[in-house]
Amino acid sequence: MNWPGGFVFSAGHCGIKRSGKPDLAFITLPRAEPLAAMFTTNRVQAAPVRLSRAHLGRNRGRVRALVVNSGNANCATGAAGRRAAQATAAAAARLLGCPREQVLVCSTGVIGVELDAAPIAAALAQWRDRQDGPEVAARAILTTDTRPKTAAAEFTHGRERWHVAGFAKGSGMIHPRMATMLAFLFTDVPASTGELRRLLRPAVEESFHRITVDGDTSTNDAVMLWSSGAGPRLPAAARPALVRAVTEVAQALARQIVLDGEGARRFVTVRLEGARTRADADRAARAIAHSPLVKTALAGADPNWGRVLCAAGYSGARFDPDRAEIWFNAMPVYRRGRALAFDEAAAKRELDRPEVAVRIHLHAGEAASWMWTCDLTEGYIRINASYRT
Amino acid sequence: MNWPGGFVFSAGHCGIKRSGKPDLAFITLPRAEPLAAMFTTNRVQAAPVRLSRAHLGRNRGRVRALVVNSGNANCATGAAGRRAAQATAAAAARLLGCPREQVLVCSTGVIGVELDAAPIAAALAQWRDRQDGPEVAARAILTTDTRPKTAAAEFTHGRERWHVAGFAKGSGMIHPRMATMLAFLFTDVPASTGELRRLLRPAVEESFHRITVDGDTSTNDAVMLWSSGAGPRLPAAARPALVRAVTEVAQALARQIVLDGEGARRFVTVRLEGARTRADADRAARAIAHSPLVKTALAGADPNWGRVLCAAGYSGARFDPDRAEIWFNAMPVYRRGRALAFDEAAAKRELDRPEVAVRIHLHAGEAASWMWTCDLTEGYIRINASYRT
Repeated sequence: MNWPGGFVFSAGHCGIKRSGKPDLAFITLPRAEPLAAMFTTNRVQAAPVRLSRAHLGRNRGRVRALVVNSGNANCATGAAGRRAAQATAAAAARLLGCPREQVLVCSTGVIGVELDAAPIAAALAQWRDRQDGPEVAARAILTTDTRPKTAAAEFTHGRERWHVAGFAKGSGMIHPRMATMLAFLFTDVPASTGELRRLLRPAVEESFHRITVDGDTSTNDAVMLWSSGAGPRLPAAARPALVRAVTEVAQALARQIVLDGEGARRFVTVRLEGARTRADADRAARAIAHSPLVKTALAGADPNWGRVLCAAGYSGARFDPDRAEIWFNAMPVYRRGRALAFDEAAAKRELDRPEVAVRIHLHAGEAASWMWTCDLTEGYIRINASYRT
Repeated sequence: MNWPGGFVFSAGHCGIKRSGKPDLAFITLPRAEPLAAMFTTNRVQAAPVRLSRAHLGRNRGRVRALVVNSGNANCATGAAGRRAAQATAAAAARLLGCPREQVLVCSTGVIGVELDAAPIAAALAQWRDRQDGPEVAARAILTTDTRPKTAAAEFTHGRERWHVAGFAKGSGMIHPRMATMLAFLFTDVPASTGELRRLLRPAVEESFHRITVDGDTSTNDAVMLWSSGAGPRLPAAARPALVRAVTEVAQALARQIVLDGEGARRFVTVRLEGARTRADADRAARAIAHSPLVKTALAGADPNWGRVLCAAGYSGARFDPDRAEIWFNAMPVYRRGRALAFDEAAAKRELDRPEVAVRIHLHAGEAASWMWTCDLTEGYIRINASYRT
């Protein structure tokens, strides 16, 4: 996996996770470079989200360093939490000799436990000359994730070559419009902050905003796209390839988050077609992808199209159920108001795969949408009945 | 349990459920009497819902008989399903010698399987002189429910006495605005259809509309309030007692539905206080009651107030998390932006009860709301990964 040049990744265990696993990543550039970010829409926002947002408002979208800790979300921690986030940024800024506004901070983990900034500051000082690489950083941001999530793409124009790569974390509290999810995308393409924003928004719309694990939108989410500018200047003709590369990396990370969904055993694509409007299509796709009854049926490899139709029915999308059609993978199961005969055993085999598709056509118009989700298993319950977010 | 006079309840097994358990209830009055009904808001509506709605539009709100079957929802069954519902109503009407518009039909069970009306018609004809009583009828409407749900209230004025009683079914696909839930309330209070409607709406608002098991709104829901008129005329001074009795019966049935929620081990009351508006209070209460993360934490008796705050945060309700307060039962756990110290073992014991309360005060205004829900356990997954709704 080729990473964009320029970025320095240091990471390891600083003392937050009792397990001794990596819990801190420190990513820097030799000077401040453009970065675009999107944050959670939850009204409850963690101290690091508020601080990073404020810094981006004061640093003209140029960032020198990013400090990410896992194991503690530093959320609902009051004035002490704000001070811990500020102290973390200040420690990194002192080390690098840059304004503290050029440092962003992200946290993920338990809510409501005070974060001690001292071990973070001590680790940053110790690690300043280490280059652990992006794979170690990708591991250092995990919480209930069972594996690190990384993706990379590259593209060329003539003899020149550029890179987009990233890593992400998240497996519970996953829902559109930012979930407990952190995703960091890096590129060497020289670009302004505005250009990075124009790249990031549509890529997120087609990736992280289309995944749901449990419908809980977290307090700490962030997605960032950061350019080192280390690559050659991008000719206009190569911009479509850049858009594709950013979207590809964002989608690959989003898929990995769903695949690692808490307790998930199946990756599910919901395709919604024939809606009256795009808003109706989104509504119905989201209701299906979010329905616990649909998701438990998929856990049991049960082609339960009644629950799919039911979820579309309460989504608010306008359609006539007597005209709708439903498929599991390529297998039609419901058409124009009634069940189609199908072999139950064959259907069960068809659905008992690591990746399945649910497709519904409303026959109410031309609009379409899609979502990615996972099945809902007893594993989700086991993880969440004991883990203190 | 004293039931209102006048109603005749026949019920038993007609052949729909393979288990041989009761699957048909036939409830009649000697002549058509006023009935108020509320149905599912799902856009996909089962054939019996559509038929009953149409009949109520043509019978001036007066009903002679109600036929309820379990084991088959007669939903998404196309023209054959419409014919089966019509044939059921026609069979009852022929037996009673009344217009078929005076017969209502309800179904609950598997979606998408054709319903054969012949065994229903045969059973009705056989049972016409049986009086099995309301307890047998209450059992005949169950699906995944583990127990029948009945409730009764009576009130007096001077020497006169009136009765309100009912039964209900439902344990999955339970969500406000009508879930897979059937509830039938009966009274002997002489009342017009309009008066019954004015009684039913607010009672449902304070009972069935405040429960959620899994957030799936079903295709077959119905709540009905039916008067036999067998009791004495109600003086105006006794109306408050009637309102209380109807609400009491509706709430008792709603509680029983939540207590019997699929896999549920705990009954949970969410109290939301200090919201800016009633709409904000409802939004936040519903988001908390519906959050799988809150519900799995409660399954593990984990006082995870971070998830409660997080759910309020994404609900859309306007508030400042730094001013909010949270309690589990009477135990304060979060105040003004930060965690309160509490004994974890004592908190776990406090939450390890069959009935718990989550209370949150937003300190944003004066509006309040509440919801009833249950914990989310592995039992829910086991039931729904295999049961074909």
